Amino acid sequence: MIDFEALFKISYGLYVVSSGNKDQGSAYIANTFSQMTSEPPQFAIFCSKNNYTTELIKASGVYAVSVLAQDAPPEIIGRFGFRSGRDFDKLEGMNLTFGTTGCPIVLNNAIAFMECKVINTIDVGTHMMFIGQLLKSELLDGEAEPLTYAYYRNIRKGFAPKNAPTYIDKSKFEKKISGNFGKYECTACGYIFNEETGDPDNHIKAGTTFGELPAGWTCPICGAEKEDFILL
Amino acid sequence: MIDFEALFKISYGLYVVSSGNKDQGSAYIANTFSQMTSEPPQFAIFCSKNNYTTELIKASGVYAVSVLAQDAPPEIIGRFGFRSGRDFDKLEGMNLTFGTTGCPIVLNNAIAFMECKVINTIDVGTHMMFIGQLLKSELLDGEAEPLTYAYYRNIRKGFAPKNAPTYIDKSKFEKKISGNFGKYECTACGYIFNEETGDPDNHIKAGTTFGELPAGWTCPICGAEKEDFILL
Repeated sequence: MIDFEALFKISYGLYVVSSGNKDQGSAYIANTFSQMTSEPPQFAIFCSKNNYTTELIKASGVYAVSVLAQDAPPEIIGRFGFRSGRDFDKLEGMNLTFGTTGCPIVLNNAIAFMECKVINTIDVGTHMMFIGQLLKSELLDGEAEPLTYAYYRNIRKGFAPKNAPTYIDKSKFEKKISGNFGKYECTACGYIFNEETGDPDNHIKAGTTFGELPAGWTCPICGAEKEDFILL
Repeated sequence: MIDFEALFKISYGLYVVSSGNKDQGSAYIANTFSQMTSEPPQFAIFCSKNNYTTELIKASGVYAVSVLAQDAPPEIIGRFGFRSGRDFDKLEGMNLTFGTTGCPIVLNNAIAFMECKVINTIDVGTHMMFIGQLLKSELLDGEAEPLTYAYYRNIRKGFAPKNAPTYIDKSKFEKKISGNFGKYECTACGYIFNEETGDPDNHIKAGTTFGELPAGWTCPICGAEKEDFILL
């Protein structure tokens, strides 16, 4: 009755959602962000209850959403999407600005941002919905295309972090491979290195075995080392 | 403080949202549709209080969302997006299926659909948010690309109906034109025929004056006649 592949035809962007203040802040990667009304401009964002940023939004009552550029590097997705802000300061060393509320806003690879004040919070199960009223918005690069979730998934071969509203257990969809090629999974973020297809973004040709990967090769999504991979 | 052009960098798809039952139904075009949680799969849709379909969703407690294909013709957008279901039966003559609840689902130019039961309704001002739990979904064409709002706006030169959550008064953004070319606005849907650019989708060359348009030419968005246009 339910075909999960149908859900892959829903279109989304990819955003860095940040919260906190000038002293303490964090951010994560979201795809489910939407305008709700135009008068006044109100937005909805759905945040996993497990996310550290969700705690900061609850505490501060503000959040900012930076729209990622199509050419945003995998490290940005890895930094904000596949690691927890409880473990390290995700905003350290980032190019930040601060909104009218003092909310940190990530400018790295951003083409626009919106700063919102939370006016309603709704518990929707695994996630919290924060309804935000727009306080400030800025277009940073009018010519650049936004990174869409479809582009990230189809062209970049990326997938959703476990806390994403659109997460699908990939084992359900993984195609069986033939031949002697192996697959290695990054234990940090779940990225799968497939010897059959290689890692063309990083000039690793199809057919390269895991053992043949150069010593400096790291997970293209989160930057984890080769030692962090396990054979599937 | 607020730059509305920043909001154009948010990514959306384009969908036909339908509701009702086997005897009576209607549908409209939405761009703001999003998954909220994956376990269970729940969705949010934001519907203008002015839409007839909104009344049907309230009454029936169900809605379906059909994902439009990238090559969906303007007539589909015009039929569902720029005319009211109070004035005519939008579903008449359409290729329909009916969901597990009896909710009509539009299959014309659809590549996937989702049928949802409303489990929560939240008033968000000009719009109603309907939180829906997924009952049924089907992938109709796995190869086809979904129509995105950016593609519709940038490539097709379409814009948002007045009831859309992302509507922006276009007079704020209309670029001044030079030369002797005129612009004519469709009073039915707001589409602007620009003599300078013509209507290439319908083989009307750039530089064609409004008077030179063939007698059978109609609004590429909503199908209104030439008489329904006014000079701007």
